[in-house]
Amino acid sequence: MKKLRLGMIGGGPGSFIGAIHRIAARMDNRYELVGGAFSSSLEKSLETGKELDLNENRIYPSYQELILQEKEKPANERIQVIAIVTPNHLHFEPAKMALENGFHVVLDKPMTLSLAEALALKVIQEKTGNLLCLTHTYTGYPMVKEAKQQIAAGKLGKIRKVYVEYPQGWLSTAVESKQADWRTDPSKSGIAGAMGDIGTHAFNLVEYVTGLRVQKLCADINIVIENRRLDDDGAVLLKFDNGASGVLMATQIAAGEENNVKIRVYGEKGGLEWQQVDANTLTIKWLDEPAQTLRTGSGYLSSFAQHNTRTPSGHPEGYLEAFANIYKNFAEHILAIQNQAEPKKESLDYPGIEEGVRGMAFIETVIASGKSSEKWLDLLKVEC
Amino acid sequence: MKKLRLGMIGGGPGSFIGAIHRIAARMDNRYELVGGAFSSSLEKSLETGKELDLNENRIYPSYQELILQEKEKPANERIQVIAIVTPNHLHFEPAKMALENGFHVVLDKPMTLSLAEALALKVIQEKTGNLLCLTHTYTGYPMVKEAKQQIAAGKLGKIRKVYVEYPQGWLSTAVESKQADWRTDPSKSGIAGAMGDIGTHAFNLVEYVTGLRVQKLCADINIVIENRRLDDDGAVLLKFDNGASGVLMATQIAAGEENNVKIRVYGEKGGLEWQQVDANTLTIKWLDEPAQTLRTGSGYLSSFAQHNTRTPSGHPEGYLEAFANIYKNFAEHILAIQNQAEPKKESLDYPGIEEGVRGMAFIETVIASGKSSEKWLDLLKVEC
Amino acid sequence: MKKLRLGMIGGGPGSFIGAIHRIAARMDNRYELVGGAFSSSLEKSLETGKELDLNENRIYPSYQELILQEKEKPANERIQVIAIVTPNHLHFEPAKMALENGFHVVLDKPMTLSLAEALALKVIQEKTGNLLCLTHTYTGYPMVKEAKQQIAAGKLGKIRKVYVEYPQGWLSTAVESKQADWRTDPSKSGIAGAMGDIGTHAFNLVEYVTGLRVQKLCADINIVIENRRLDDDGAVLLKFDNGASGVLMATQIAAGEENNVKIRVYGEKGGLEWQQVDANTLTIKWLDEPAQTLRTGSGYLSSFAQHNTRTPSGHPEGYLEAFANIYKNFAEHILAIQNQAEPKKESLDYPGIEEGVRGMAFIETVIASGKSSEKWLDLLKVEC
Amino acid sequence: MKKLRLGMIGGGPGSFIGAIHRIAARMDNRYELVGGAFSSSLEKSLETGKELDLNENRIYPSYQELILQEKEKPANERIQVIAIVTPNHLHFEPAKMALENGFHVVLDKPMTLSLAEALALKVIQEKTGNLLCLTHTYTGYPMVKEAKQQIAAGKLGKIRKVYVEYPQGWLSTAVESKQADWRTDPSKSGIAGAMGDIGTHAFNLVEYVTGLRVQKLCADINIVIENRRLDDDGAVLLKFDNGASGVLMATQIAAGEENNVKIRVYGEKGGLEWQQVDANTLTIKWLDEPAQTLRTGSGYLSSFAQHNTRTPSGHPEGYLEAFANIYKNFAEHILAIQNQAEPKKESLDYPGIEEGVRGMAFIETVIASGKSSEKWLDLLKVEC
Repeated sequence: MKKLRLGMIGGGPGSFIGAIHRIAARMDNRYELVGGAFSSSLEKSLETGKELDLNENRIYPSYQELILQEKEKPANERIQVIAIVTPNHLHFEPAKMALENGFHVVLDKPMTLSLAEALALKVIQEKTGNLLCLTHTYTGYPMVKEAKQQIAAGKLGKIRKVYVEYPQGWLSTAVESKQADWRTDPSKSGIAGAMGDIGTHAFNLVEYVTGLRVQKLCADINIVIENRRLDDDGAVLLKFDNGASGVLMATQIAAGEENNVKIRVYGEKGGLEWQQVDANTLTIKWLDEPAQTLRTGSGYLSSFAQHNTRTPSGHPEGYLEAFANIYKNFAEHILAIQNQAEPKKESLDYPGIEEGVRGMAFIETVIASGKSSEKWLDLLKVEC
Repeated sequence: MKKLRLGMIGGGPGSFIGAIHRIAARMDNRYELVGGAFSSSLEKSLETGKELDLNENRIYPSYQELILQEKEKPANERIQVIAIVTPNHLHFEPAKMALENGFHVVLDKPMTLSLAEALALKVIQEKTGNLLCLTHTYTGYPMVKEAKQQIAAGKLGKIRKVYVEYPQGWLSTAVESKQADWRTDPSKSGIAGAMGDIGTHAFNLVEYVTGLRVQKLCADINIVIENRRLDDDGAVLLKFDNGASGVLMATQIAAGEENNVKIRVYGEKGGLEWQQVDANTLTIKWLDEPAQTLRTGSGYLSSFAQHNTRTPSGHPEGYLEAFANIYKNFAEHILAIQNQAEPKKESLDYPGIEEGVRGMAFIETVIASGKSSEKWLDLLKVEC
Repeated sequence: MKKLRLGMIGGGPGSFIGAIHRIAARMDNRYELVGGAFSSSLEKSLETGKELDLNENRIYPSYQELILQEKEKPANERIQVIAIVTPNHLHFEPAKMALENGFHVVLDKPMTLSLAEALALKVIQEKTGNLLCLTHTYTGYPMVKEAKQQIAAGKLGKIRKVYVEYPQGWLSTAVESKQADWRTDPSKSGIAGAMGDIGTHAFNLVEYVTGLRVQKLCADINIVIENRRLDDDGAVLLKFDNGASGVLMATQIAAGEENNVKIRVYGEKGGLEWQQVDANTLTIKWLDEPAQTLRTGSGYLSSFAQHNTRTPSGHPEGYLEAFANIYKNFAEHILAIQNQAEPKKESLDYPGIEEGVRGMAFIETVIASGKSSEKWLDLLKVEC
Repeated sequence: MKKLRLGMIGGGPGSFIGAIHRIAARMDNRYELVGGAFSSSLEKSLETGKELDLNENRIYPSYQELILQEKEKPANERIQVIAIVTPNHLHFEPAKMALENGFHVVLDKPMTLSLAEALALKVIQEKTGNLLCLTHTYTGYPMVKEAKQQIAAGKLGKIRKVYVEYPQGWLSTAVESKQADWRTDPSKSGIAGAMGDIGTHAFNLVEYVTGLRVQKLCADINIVIENRRLDDDGAVLLKFDNGASGVLMATQIAAGEENNVKIRVYGEKGGLEWQQVDANTLTIKWLDEPAQTLRTGSGYLSSFAQHNTRTPSGHPEGYLEAFANIYKNFAEHILAIQNQAEPKKESLDYPGIEEGVRGMAFIETVIASGKSSEKWLDLLKVEC
């Protein structure tokens, strides 16, 4: 099987998420990283290229150069997929230019700096027909996929109640000058801090797993650490399109918490629970029967869960594998198109432009709600 | 040590909570149940009396008779403490009459049918000087007491965020005709269903553990099961008097859930977590150090935790022991007064009239908020 | 329902297990403690009697006096059941005398100081026809009873492998002079330390749950703490009568461990797991299906589990309730006999003389094996 | 950083462990797989080569051809490291030939078919000076490394007791004809089944973590499934060189179990516990203080744990990352030598020839013990 040639924008020295994207792309042997514009500094970009054992000729001084020069290369050489792992304010322009110049795009979340950009990008993506994949990592976990399938198959009956939470503690002190850098800077991060960084993950997770759409919300948005410029904490009451209600909690000031994304969904017949700290387990609790513990790698799981697992049950897979699943499925989709084959339905199960637009609608609505004295705000209407 | 003579109002055939109160009273040998008006039917009351091996002469046809006749007995015979375990609409009158006639009172929660009744009862209790104990069970757990002590000692620094939840599933179907009986009947339960039955437990737990007071709230209150007359689900955004924020979740339609009350509190330096399903563990998570697991019965715990434990660490104590701790401490308080001794501070650590008034203020505010289009409502001001 | 009149031998000031027995007897209102010989010192015995609010006339200077004087009382006054909670060397004589004088007996484990005494007691018990109950606490847990029922019903198929463990840490240092007192003194404890104190619990648990009988064993028995006189650690390979094999681990020098008795049993179709730290959960793991989590208080459990539970699911019951179940069932057995009724099969499910004899056979064999260079020793043959 | 050129022997169509080795090698970008003899069938080997997008010229019909032809290539082209992932009976010859022809070797465990082969390989490895890495996966987990460091630093005091277990259920039925294939065939697997396949992992883990050496053992070795040719279950009593004792349990017939390797070690001051199902947690239990929960990715961990982690705390890493750590460290060792640099001590922390020899000594001793009526057998003496 031929590997896809991958280029990267962003992800230079010190980038956490760039390194993660590279491991994810590498894991299943579906991509070969061949070039990049890893930094706005060519020197730093070259440093990363060397570290990665890349050909110096394909390290570019800017994302524009990367796109323009790669476009000129022969078809069997040029980059096919571009991963954009820059801060939020540098998502739209590179993604637009990449799509318009014939590249498929992997984009880190949230999709853009604003809903307006997101909607514009949607138009561009649809016009060009090139594919876009948005790395909402948590939907890449096999047991999250299993949760979605169980609910879609009606196992829980009509959904009534949802709790989703994303507690972190790493912004419990004023770490702005250090790692928090652009994440607390409105000009780079957009109007939201915690809600953009992790709230969108929780929002995406809940809509993915339940198949429901948030219609209205009521948010309590806080800046807990003095002088911080963006929200570092929030809780949101949710109303879904089927009448269910929910609660979304996302905070970066829960001192002592790591990163334990967790979702609980309750329907007429039972409830299910998944949390990242025990990522290979999906618990289903029934109304009048013993709860069941479903485990990654087991033969009784749906094809979606099995498609996204590499090892037999009992060999824990984690965050990097979940991330890699998104890359893998995206590659399978592209390769199917290249081979004029029908992609497997499991391969199409990755987040893209629709999830990106809804995420931006969530961000703008939730921040508006935080400032509003009205109780319920409709989620900004977008045609996704 | 002399035992206190106990009488009971309510708790006849089929009563869940009556049996629990009796086990709790019995556990530590501080009470002897000697009489009761267990039911509005004398026949049923006698049946319960026989089952309990009580003297038939002290089974009364009504709570009024119990109070009036016991009052006439010689001091060394008559009932000293009356436990009232009737539905909510039958709390105020028996409690009032008991207090006014010289009895100490144990009262099940919520304290009354309305805030007005609660405030009136407070006046009566203060005037008579007789003691009242409200059985908010969860604050009886030793590790909940430890949590309060850790926070009071400043171990977590200033409190910033609180999550408290109480998920149940037993009202997931229309069980009104069966066990749910009076709990879903407004004339007996008051204006709240789930919020009164379990929401008040969560509210009491959060104020007890943090030492903070809820100032404002914003509630989403739902009736999920068709034709139910009272709320069976709700989520509440909270604002505390020190500026902290929180979320309170209480539901009785989370199909598959049992009764896992859980609280998480985060301060500047770390967070703590307790949940009933693992009741003998208190987890403290620190900002930059390994989390710690504190366990019931350990020598390093506060005097409040140790005072409320009967066995060495590793011998799980549970719900009945937590309930019994409330009875035990109440007895110690009464016995100290009888002996004109200073009660131990640990003995005074049980819920009473103040907690009852605040609980009723919570119920009335949260139900009002559920109906309001205003975002934040102040908790009804009461001088507790 | 009439309560049984209970007397106690042992359990004076400072006794841990005496207080536990009294709570257990009290919990379900089936016994009234009316007298005792709590200590070899009458003064101490009176002190305990006063603390328990007992009539001074029924506090006796010796167990002999208790038995002889109570025997003379009228039938509707005299003690009916005697609980013996003394160190091991004071089990046989009081139990023998109590049985021979018409009393039923509750006896703490291990049953006697030696197998010879155990066999003698069995003869006496059978001859007198009075009942004997041995407080192997762990078989009183409802989920342990459920485990036994699941296996007895063939749910796991033929049993192949068993792991049972009982790790404690409280003898990790030389605490002989303090709480360890008689437990490390061969003249009071018998030939075994840890193996007698907790190894017998593990042995009883494994035979109870599986319904199998240990045929052969191979033991590694250690004294880890210098100058200790009895074993404080051991591990034992087991062979069962159906060909299954197992491992029994019991230690009191596992520093940091509390008291987490745990059993795992595997058959052809699946395995089950129970541990005291999560006592209200029984996990059943199936060969090709999701594991199931059974929970105390649930409607789907066997009558044996339900009979031994007081609260709905989600209200944790613990060690004291497990202990109380033994007392409760013993009372139900006695009361059925008194009423010439057929006892319920659930009431008969408590440990007695057979379990006591097998426990002593285990102790003698395991200590012999520890000293032997032969690999496998047959469990001393006794006709239980 | 230049990548090492990797070749592979074994790992053709259907191989589980071959795919794992390739992911592990790929994860950290330290290797590029350039060729292989994936199967004894050239056709199948070519199929795997194509699937992996390899140059057809470097797919060889046999391991001999691979070694001989690669040896002739120019230094900047030829394979530098050979991974051998064949069944046990095909370990020694390829490893010997690879080492003798100038290649470094990654070898799957157990190292050889017999102890004699292992000792011979040790001589060869020492003579050639080429490096050998043995993939005992579990010692690649960061929290296993942390456990070793905590013990080496004396945090637990002198070690007294060890429990290590490896329960699997996948051989609970007669699956010989399917996936169990060579693992139950003595001519390919050697004298041991479960003891060789997973018992050696447990043995390696316990010696790695404690730093102790097993001196004597007493084994119960079973064939549970009828007609199986090799052991599928066993339990072993252990004696260590410092006087500590232990228990090793390894089974493949624990129906319902997945792969939950677990180790518990107790010293004078406390104990620690790690299990694969919660691989990112290391629990340390103290004698008189709250237990601590150490978590992968935390700043307070040793350099050994941190060196083997890719993500911040809260992003679970799993089995593939543990495997990759072994590959990564081996690469760092080789690259340091190539660069004539001092390797970091963390890079040297991977299993090799010594662990392989001890593993084979364990296998031969444990199987002999299983057949012996003598209680204790000395571990076959080897100079590691």
